[in-house]
Amino acid sequence: MKNKEFLDAKENALKSLLDASDQGEVDEGVLPLLGLINKMDGFYTSSSCAGRIVLLQIPQIGDKREAIFLGIWHRTITPVELQTAATKATTGYLWLLAQAPILHIGAESLPIADRMVKTAVSCGFKNSAIKSIGKKILIELCSTERLDAPIGRDGCLFCDEKYLSMLVEISNEVINRSQNKMSRLTKKLGKFTVFP
Amino acid sequence: MKNKEFLDAKENALKSLLDASDQGEVDEGVLPLLGLINKMDGFYTSSSCAGRIVLLQIPQIGDKREAIFLGIWHRTITPVELQTAATKATTGYLWLLAQAPILHIGAESLPIADRMVKTAVSCGFKNSAIKSIGKKILIELCSTERLDAPIGRDGCLFCDEKYLSMLVEISNEVINRSQNKMSRLTKKLGKFTVFP
Repeated sequence: MKNKEFLDAKENALKSLLDASDQGEVDEGVLPLLGLINKMDGFYTSSSCAGRIVLLQIPQIGDKREAIFLGIWHRTITPVELQTAATKATTGYLWLLAQAPILHIGAESLPIADRMVKTAVSCGFKNSAIKSIGKKILIELCSTERLDAPIGRDGCLFCDEKYLSMLVEISNEVINRSQNKMSRLTKKLGKFTVFP
Repeated sequence: MKNKEFLDAKENALKSLLDASDQGEVDEGVLPLLGLINKMDGFYTSSSCAGRIVLLQIPQIGDKREAIFLGIWHRTITPVELQTAATKATTGYLWLLAQAPILHIGAESLPIADRMVKTAVSCGFKNSAIKSIGKKILIELCSTERLDAPIGRDGCLFCDEKYLSMLVEISNEVINRSQNKMSRLTKKLGKFTVFP
């Protein structure tokens, strides 16, 4: 890709991020890391998520298009918060998801894309990879912790209070570990004035 | 990478696959697809899994090194099979996992690696990517269906029979969908004498 094309793509991405941030659509927890990556030569960030806990209702297994979000939290939660969100459930499966951060990054060249992936892997983002090398080079940084558990059907939770507490405890652990990994990556990238 | 290096790597990979296959260490369900990819110029397969249902015991959250496999099935299962496997549990968390297939593939060049990723994505392996572009170019083909649910602690299941049946039903659905996607990819790759 010509340098001009990369710089144009970066400029557009930064504008979009600024707009989304102004409208409160960017998770605050991920902003320092995004800012740092956007200050680096050769990279810009695209849609990203700081990690979250989600209560989802889906009509049928795998039918994500029809999924309804009953609760989204970019932080640790209590069992009561989960139970309250679940009262909105109607028909279909109820899934509790705890998801690690996902960062999408545009890169100017393949060698620096590969280095970014390796740096992220060394900070615990073990599921990182180059997703596309077409017109744009796109990287995805992601960690492996997660919980994807069906917890009810047709408005009823299948788990008792003790079980629900364990699920919330583990979901919170995913969030805490995610934040630690983001701190580690922020610290490591902060050391580079030019990416080695 | 020089062509000779790629061909040596392919030869070694094929030997390893043959040895593993002789010892019954390769999932039968994935063998036709592996055979097809290995017949294609510019690709060879590395460690791969046809998708599976796993009952895992881990001492602490995220402590995968100490994980004990209480059950591994490369097929659909019954609730009774899961309950029987769970009787072996002692201390720690019990997790039920249903995992989509993962195929690791070496590629001779970046353009054909990118094409293989795009072909896999079009067959439903939406989590596919180029994992490494160092000395070797390595691709990972993977789908998005999964279930990662903690279902008990210290030898006790937290779910009643109805809930367990739902978990098994959904796990089986992951396996069935995985097999459909592998058939689709096998059919699509079978059409190419030379990868376009």
